Amino acid sequence: MKAAIIGGTGYSSVELVRLLHQHPFVDVTTIISNSQAGSMLHETYPHVTCVVEQTLQSLDLNKLSQSVEIVFLATPSGVSKSIVPGLMENGVKCIDLSGDFRLRSAQSYEEWYKHTAADERYLAKATYGLSEIYEEQIKSATLIANPGCYPTATLLGLMPVIKNKLIDNKTIIIDAKSGVSGAGRSVSMGTHFAEVNENLKAYKIGAHQHIPEIEQTLQNETGQSQAITFTTHLVPMTRGIMCTMHANLSDVITTSDVLQLYNEFYQAHHFVRVRPEGTFPSTKEVLGSNFCDIGLHVDARTGRLTIISVIDNLVKGASGQAIQNLNLLNGWDVRTGLLEVPVYP
Amino acid sequence: MKAAIIGGTGYSSVELVRLLHQHPFVDVTTIISNSQAGSMLHETYPHVTCVVEQTLQSLDLNKLSQSVEIVFLATPSGVSKSIVPGLMENGVKCIDLSGDFRLRSAQSYEEWYKHTAADERYLAKATYGLSEIYEEQIKSATLIANPGCYPTATLLGLMPVIKNKLIDNKTIIIDAKSGVSGAGRSVSMGTHFAEVNENLKAYKIGAHQHIPEIEQTLQNETGQSQAITFTTHLVPMTRGIMCTMHANLSDVITTSDVLQLYNEFYQAHHFVRVRPEGTFPSTKEVLGSNFCDIGLHVDARTGRLTIISVIDNLVKGASGQAIQNLNLLNGWDVRTGLLEVPVYP
Amino acid sequence: MKAAIIGGTGYSSVELVRLLHQHPFVDVTTIISNSQAGSMLHETYPHVTCVVEQTLQSLDLNKLSQSVEIVFLATPSGVSKSIVPGLMENGVKCIDLSGDFRLRSAQSYEEWYKHTAADERYLAKATYGLSEIYEEQIKSATLIANPGCYPTATLLGLMPVIKNKLIDNKTIIIDAKSGVSGAGRSVSMGTHFAEVNENLKAYKIGAHQHIPEIEQTLQNETGQSQAITFTTHLVPMTRGIMCTMHANLSDVITTSDVLQLYNEFYQAHHFVRVRPEGTFPSTKEVLGSNFCDIGLHVDARTGRLTIISVIDNLVKGASGQAIQNLNLLNGWDVRTGLLEVPVYP
Amino acid sequence: MKAAIIGGTGYSSVELVRLLHQHPFVDVTTIISNSQAGSMLHETYPHVTCVVEQTLQSLDLNKLSQSVEIVFLATPSGVSKSIVPGLMENGVKCIDLSGDFRLRSAQSYEEWYKHTAADERYLAKATYGLSEIYEEQIKSATLIANPGCYPTATLLGLMPVIKNKLIDNKTIIIDAKSGVSGAGRSVSMGTHFAEVNENLKAYKIGAHQHIPEIEQTLQNETGQSQAITFTTHLVPMTRGIMCTMHANLSDVITTSDVLQLYNEFYQAHHFVRVRPEGTFPSTKEVLGSNFCDIGLHVDARTGRLTIISVIDNLVKGASGQAIQNLNLLNGWDVRTGLLEVPVYP
Repeated sequence: MKAAIIGGTGYSSVELVRLLHQHPFVDVTTIISNSQAGSMLHETYPHVTCVVEQTLQSLDLNKLSQSVEIVFLATPSGVSKSIVPGLMENGVKCIDLSGDFRLRSAQSYEEWYKHTAADERYLAKATYGLSEIYEEQIKSATLIANPGCYPTATLLGLMPVIKNKLIDNKTIIIDAKSGVSGAGRSVSMGTHFAEVNENLKAYKIGAHQHIPEIEQTLQNETGQSQAITFTTHLVPMTRGIMCTMHANLSDVITTSDVLQLYNEFYQAHHFVRVRPEGTFPSTKEVLGSNFCDIGLHVDARTGRLTIISVIDNLVKGASGQAIQNLNLLNGWDVRTGLLEVPVYP
Repeated sequence: MKAAIIGGTGYSSVELVRLLHQHPFVDVTTIISNSQAGSMLHETYPHVTCVVEQTLQSLDLNKLSQSVEIVFLATPSGVSKSIVPGLMENGVKCIDLSGDFRLRSAQSYEEWYKHTAADERYLAKATYGLSEIYEEQIKSATLIANPGCYPTATLLGLMPVIKNKLIDNKTIIIDAKSGVSGAGRSVSMGTHFAEVNENLKAYKIGAHQHIPEIEQTLQNETGQSQAITFTTHLVPMTRGIMCTMHANLSDVITTSDVLQLYNEFYQAHHFVRVRPEGTFPSTKEVLGSNFCDIGLHVDARTGRLTIISVIDNLVKGASGQAIQNLNLLNGWDVRTGLLEVPVYP
Repeated sequence: MKAAIIGGTGYSSVELVRLLHQHPFVDVTTIISNSQAGSMLHETYPHVTCVVEQTLQSLDLNKLSQSVEIVFLATPSGVSKSIVPGLMENGVKCIDLSGDFRLRSAQSYEEWYKHTAADERYLAKATYGLSEIYEEQIKSATLIANPGCYPTATLLGLMPVIKNKLIDNKTIIIDAKSGVSGAGRSVSMGTHFAEVNENLKAYKIGAHQHIPEIEQTLQNETGQSQAITFTTHLVPMTRGIMCTMHANLSDVITTSDVLQLYNEFYQAHHFVRVRPEGTFPSTKEVLGSNFCDIGLHVDARTGRLTIISVIDNLVKGASGQAIQNLNLLNGWDVRTGLLEVPVYP
Repeated sequence: MKAAIIGGTGYSSVELVRLLHQHPFVDVTTIISNSQAGSMLHETYPHVTCVVEQTLQSLDLNKLSQSVEIVFLATPSGVSKSIVPGLMENGVKCIDLSGDFRLRSAQSYEEWYKHTAADERYLAKATYGLSEIYEEQIKSATLIANPGCYPTATLLGLMPVIKNKLIDNKTIIIDAKSGVSGAGRSVSMGTHFAEVNENLKAYKIGAHQHIPEIEQTLQNETGQSQAITFTTHLVPMTRGIMCTMHANLSDVITTSDVLQLYNEFYQAHHFVRVRPEGTFPSTKEVLGSNFCDIGLHVDARTGRLTIISVIDNLVKGASGQAIQNLNLLNGWDVRTGLLEVPVYP
């Protein structure tokens, strides 16, 4: 299958290049980067020298539609909404890694993203690509809105207790932490090494655009609208997201019982690993891989459940999950091209 | 004033050496380290070469009692409880940086620390040295239990809303993050660079020994016993603690109003800096200094208050606050020897 | 092909596990760790959970000899010399990642390693496994002494000018820098995060055990014994080695001409990538991969050549090169199982 | 004494603010930043909140000349050359932390800096402020060209053997490594955290503008022009420079004898600390302080001397040495305001 990547010099894009290089059924024939068109990918990213020898191209919708079957859009928010319609009209399936098609409500998008939203007809066609949860819908999708990095870690961590109505949804508090690659490759004072190194910073408090994405999915599952507290932090590391999630339990239940529920829930899902009682995952234990690892603890003193979930923000939080969705879309084994063991240490 | 430091090769101890070197009224005449007695401090810590040329000594209680007026104990938990009584009987004042005298209840100490507690007569004599809050008590103390690093950041962050009854105490959830120096200088797999670098890890979930210390102080202030959720994380940096604290507000109130309350509460306190609305402190902005910086946000969508507080765990979270307490004890300006500007970047 | 790994809980060993998991012709059936025998590998390394579900075993030479065809020894120096003879007598081929069989001279080994050397009969049987240079010898080896991390980066960087007699060998000065994983997983003050982070340290100056390994190979090629200056530094990162190498040129020659020579020399070698004039590789550009990237510069002002080579110390500097050697040994494509793109950023 | 700082939002500038805050005889009354004029310094650098409450001002030469006695210029290269003449004409002494007045030869400046050089009359008036070496000249200077960070570490490391003619100057090879703050605060891909973290990079090979500065001083001392090999690397840390220097010894001499020479040479100089035989300084051991620490080793096998020197690039390599020079200029104890113990760990 021939594939194209749009947004060729961002981190998610080059991560797609890395992962698809190992995919037996996909050939990345076109990498689009309007800003670097005409140069080789390895001029921007020397690490692909001798491995991926491609010239970056500028976007030509017609040519692209005729030459590939699938397009990954790894563009900044506000870009893919103008590209996707043209591709879909020509019968090309799209997997959008940006936030443009994740929120059903155009109004909510405009409120949180401060951009004009995509056309509502296309918003309605988009399938939310949280692979483990919406497997069936993804299989028949034409446009996949690949989830955000934070929502992936959060929703995989919460889904078993949400679906089993084990917690009081009004009490959900999420403390989220991310490595710096989540901010993308654009230069800014906020990503300057000397400002980030040996530093921990909270940002976008109460204002992160992933909040409505999480709330929308929770509402889908519970039928109720419920605001959550979601606080984001920048950690001095390159890759990795950890979400530490707290909620009041509806019933008295032990850690062991909740773990059993999680193990059953994710039994058939290769990429979610539930850790044994008393142990918790750290971000590096999934680095470079498509795993989401989960640990949890019931605190009898407070009646609260604390869930820890970790992912590599560029893999399960972006490009890896996009490939997982491509596998679902094509009826391939979901693990195809994603068998890498985490790089540790 | 002649001072001694016991526990001479730990990080808090060498930080006392650094800070007291700039104190005009204190002379560190004795540094005790049973394990390294006979060697020079700069053999363990070459950075003090030519600055502090002292030989480490083994502990001799009688000699020590006669030669100094104040002793800082920067020992692992379970050690100072055997040393402090002998010093106090000889009229030497003690500032204990370990956890041995922080909890009033011997039973609680033994439950959380898994050691035998100190003699209850001495527990009763200890003054909890949270400088800004217990200023008056500290001035007349003979034994100061210097607060833990996490409790310092947490309690300074919460105290204004606790004292003003602005939050529902049953809903307090604290997400705490620390640099690696908080684990001390002992070698272990958990502090190995290759295991910690580019990694974020949660630890001691629901089991950290600073939980009862925080709860005891909250109970002092509210008159009610209330369990809190307190989750600790290890961040790939050397120094710094951030506590992200969440609670339901009792009333409808704006961020601006809560900030005004904090500004008034800490107006007379040099070392607590309240940040303007919309801004939040990062850990590096206090590195090397005795400041505790606080930012906060009221989320109208959830009715919750989120407070961010940061300290340098080795300064305000240990040695700096110990010196601040020494200043209070002696009626000196609380800033004496602690005027350093944070080291940034 | 069935393979065993001895030294199961070190970093090189778990890196072998990661890489061999992707090798189509090799099955790691036995992982030996005397210290952790009986426990699962994922108890020590949670990142392999659900991927490699093996119980660590204690060493039983007879059983091992009957069950596998190849053994990787990833043991501390001084261990494999006692294990290899027994395996070889039973017809099992060995790839030793330690230094035990690298030096032909037992006396030199004892001088630099401060251990008793291996039996000279086995030293004589060992083939030095610098894959690109000794390809032919490796193909028919029975015992491969896998090169050290520093010698790999150094020798690949120097070999084209050594073989072409372009430099004055008496003037070779090598400034080598390594990430902390090179020190292994044992805990020590020298690998404590708070001591290494935000710190750069020189160590073992004039005394590193890789010096005689480099000199022996240079002597092989030049026929002359020549002492080199080789200075090692510990860099605050986990993976990566950079060698910055200086030597006086024998003739007047341009950067461009030297680069052409390197390109020709390594043309048939997939894993050595020579960078274009004016560009130099950084360590992260090979992270997780088996590449050795090289850049160089002729300084007309001084008549000196400066060569920069980088590798991932755990891959090309250890486990990756071991697998490359296994491929050579079996007549497989040298890239088998080693096609991973570097993990960047 | 009233002082001004020009270049108010760079790292050297805010480091001057930090250090001068502790200087008993100097009052920073004016901080100039054309780009941020009108805003408070703490808006750019929140870490000075409540400590330095000054409004940044735009440059008004006349006003400035009348209000201060000394001006520190911490501006990018090419800026101070237009400001200094006006200040000097009005009798204001200048300490320039940029490279504009370091090279005597305008031609050399233009060749290496790619800017127009300063007026030669002012170049002639400049005193090179390498404090320990040119103490006497600095005392009577009117314009001090504060040395570059790399030249400071290099020249302090080499000067004793240069002055004592112990090495063959034609063989000097310097491998220099710097933390990222040396690149300043401007944002660029080269300082993006995700590009620098867990990465080691060589840069400006054979082309660094500090090369002619080092060579000019060596020529001053030896009377001979001699090109050196000087290779710079970017290390994933914020502060710190290490120079590893190699040269052939002219005579047979022991490590111990060379160390004795260094100890004598720097005996009267508080800020240079020579380490005992067999030990070498690491960068963190001087972090935040004005020390330059030196260790060295004679390798009998090669007849070469290896010298390691470390400094904090923002202190001894910039702002600290500037204050040391101010102290010399005023006849104050050279340590005034610079007594800080390094911040370790």
